[in-house]
Amino acid sequence: MTLTGPVEVVGTGLLGTSLALACTAAGLDVLLSDVSAEHVRTASGLGAGRAKQPGDRAQVVVVAVPPDHLGPVIASILTETAGTDTVVTDVGSVKAAPLAVVADHPEAARYVGSHPMAGSERSGPLAGHAALFEGRPWAITPHLGSDDAAVELVEELVRLTGAVPVWLTPDEHDRAVARTSHVPHLMAALVAGRLAEAPEAYLNLSGQGVRDVTRVAAGDPRLYAQIVTGNRDAVLDLLGEVREQLDAAITAIGSGDRGGLEEILTRGNVGTRAIPGKHGGPARPMASVWVTIADEPGQLATLFADAVETRISVEDIRIDHDPSRPVGLVELVVDETHADTLLEALAAKNWVAHR
Amino acid sequence: MTLTGPVEVVGTGLLGTSLALACTAAGLDVLLSDVSAEHVRTASGLGAGRAKQPGDRAQVVVVAVPPDHLGPVIASILTETAGTDTVVTDVGSVKAAPLAVVADHPEAARYVGSHPMAGSERSGPLAGHAALFEGRPWAITPHLGSDDAAVELVEELVRLTGAVPVWLTPDEHDRAVARTSHVPHLMAALVAGRLAEAPEAYLNLSGQGVRDVTRVAAGDPRLYAQIVTGNRDAVLDLLGEVREQLDAAITAIGSGDRGGLEEILTRGNVGTRAIPGKHGGPARPMASVWVTIADEPGQLATLFADAVETRISVEDIRIDHDPSRPVGLVELVVDETHADTLLEALAAKNWVAHR
Repeated sequence: MTLTGPVEVVGTGLLGTSLALACTAAGLDVLLSDVSAEHVRTASGLGAGRAKQPGDRAQVVVVAVPPDHLGPVIASILTETAGTDTVVTDVGSVKAAPLAVVADHPEAARYVGSHPMAGSERSGPLAGHAALFEGRPWAITPHLGSDDAAVELVEELVRLTGAVPVWLTPDEHDRAVARTSHVPHLMAALVAGRLAEAPEAYLNLSGQGVRDVTRVAAGDPRLYAQIVTGNRDAVLDLLGEVREQLDAAITAIGSGDRGGLEEILTRGNVGTRAIPGKHGGPARPMASVWVTIADEPGQLATLFADAVETRISVEDIRIDHDPSRPVGLVELVVDETHADTLLEALAAKNWVAHR
Repeated sequence: MTLTGPVEVVGTGLLGTSLALACTAAGLDVLLSDVSAEHVRTASGLGAGRAKQPGDRAQVVVVAVPPDHLGPVIASILTETAGTDTVVTDVGSVKAAPLAVVADHPEAARYVGSHPMAGSERSGPLAGHAALFEGRPWAITPHLGSDDAAVELVEELVRLTGAVPVWLTPDEHDRAVARTSHVPHLMAALVAGRLAEAPEAYLNLSGQGVRDVTRVAAGDPRLYAQIVTGNRDAVLDLLGEVREQLDAAITAIGSGDRGGLEEILTRGNVGTRAIPGKHGGPARPMASVWVTIADEPGQLATLFADAVETRISVEDIRIDHDPSRPVGLVELVVDETHADTLLEALAAKNWVAHR
């Protein structure tokens, strides 16, 4: 089967509208529907497609509704399209719960779940963009009864957006996101919660570390409560492990057992190295070069121009602002073997830099 | 009293050597000592100062030895300099534990603790740099018996390095770093530890969020075990709170109590906003603009040049690499009110960008 459209998008929020825009840009006919007629008008006005009319029939239906509604909406679309070869997928952030609703449906073979690792701090159709999925992992999670042809069509849709397919079963997916997303989010919220209760003066000691650890905790509490409770079992299993390790850390610190504490910290070390590196290769040892700049955008551009001349690839950048002066520290993360060369080259251009 | 030197640095590791370099650069006479004569030779060779000779007398002694040795070393220096007005400070990451060793010393008035919020993934004198403290918060933690003149001299030393003084009592300091550094580090390690045990395929779903949460867990386990156990009481108090909140989260998720979970997540929201913003002002609402670039350093520089033309100040930057293709996503964080303008300007220059 080849993806020729029409593609129907049910739910014209951030993800739905972005997908619709990507499909439209690829020349496909896109049908839009939403419980909010205004959202459909907005998405349509952005060029995401046209409002679905009675009689329109889609080749693929993408369900992009909030997690709570996924199962029932997928089931009702399978029922409406009974007897056709319309493929149904969804972009929800949990996969076992909606599948449980749909699994016994007589038309379930036409359903293949999926989940793009993309988002934004904004929501609604106006936040949509055709490039949202560009370069992002997109999990495709066929169930045991999914038709091969349906799976292939969903893969085609994923590739059309510029996303990178990652193959997992629905259960594997949920356990994976519990580990790489839901539990990290919850723990970030617990750490950030302790800051909410701190005297203001204490927070003046905040550095890049605590900012990094807590950043994701700025996400919408209602949405994340919905996502996390939707992945109840996988999240609870992992939180049980975290609690066990937390107890072990408390015991080790309380009894002055440094070896026990080091063991826990070493496991964390190993974990940071397990996250895939650039382009899927193993993570290489990185080093940071710190540069002091006057806090003006022009400085940053000049710094980059100078860094580029070295032909050393900058893997990551962070900007740390002086809490009380118009000065910023820019951290350039590069391959460890290139850090000294970069440092010397920047110093030669009169930058105040150090490793 | 005015800082005229000599400044003696005891312990020529990363912090000691960096401080010595900053003092030398400011024209002060710097005396170096270390249990390792080789470290002194290395630091001296870098221009950090000269090896301390019998008969040399310092105006300020800075103790920059590992946390375990702080108290005894400070006490023995106070004894050696009995009857002089030599001021003694230290740069250790915990403040109550060394003070407990020193508090009853008859010369304790000449001791004022301090702690610069600076470091590196490297250690030893070769990693030292005069600019290490530039723009960093540096806690100054006088005890009740500290002489005013001694406190002023330590403040002068801190300002000389370009750091920003933050005034706290030793106990406040320890409770502050437990919250902003030690507990975030431990929780990052617990999250990262779960990744160490994950099937490799799961980690392909890792996004920027989990990388941010776990980044600090890459730090040296031996050093952090020493720091954390040195701040035992403050860390245990907070870990008790974290454990209580973790239990509350587990109960809420297990019983489907979304309101309870939302409450925990909302407290995290509040906490992320409590971290001081740029230049100490309140944190302003920020927004991200995502730009897709070919993964070449030249692209980054061109993007910066284009961003600079908009005259919008870029507050933070992150680079997210496609796990399987030579493409990167650059996240430009700007004031929320400027995000659309930046987006339009970049689109006009043919960048594939979205919010």
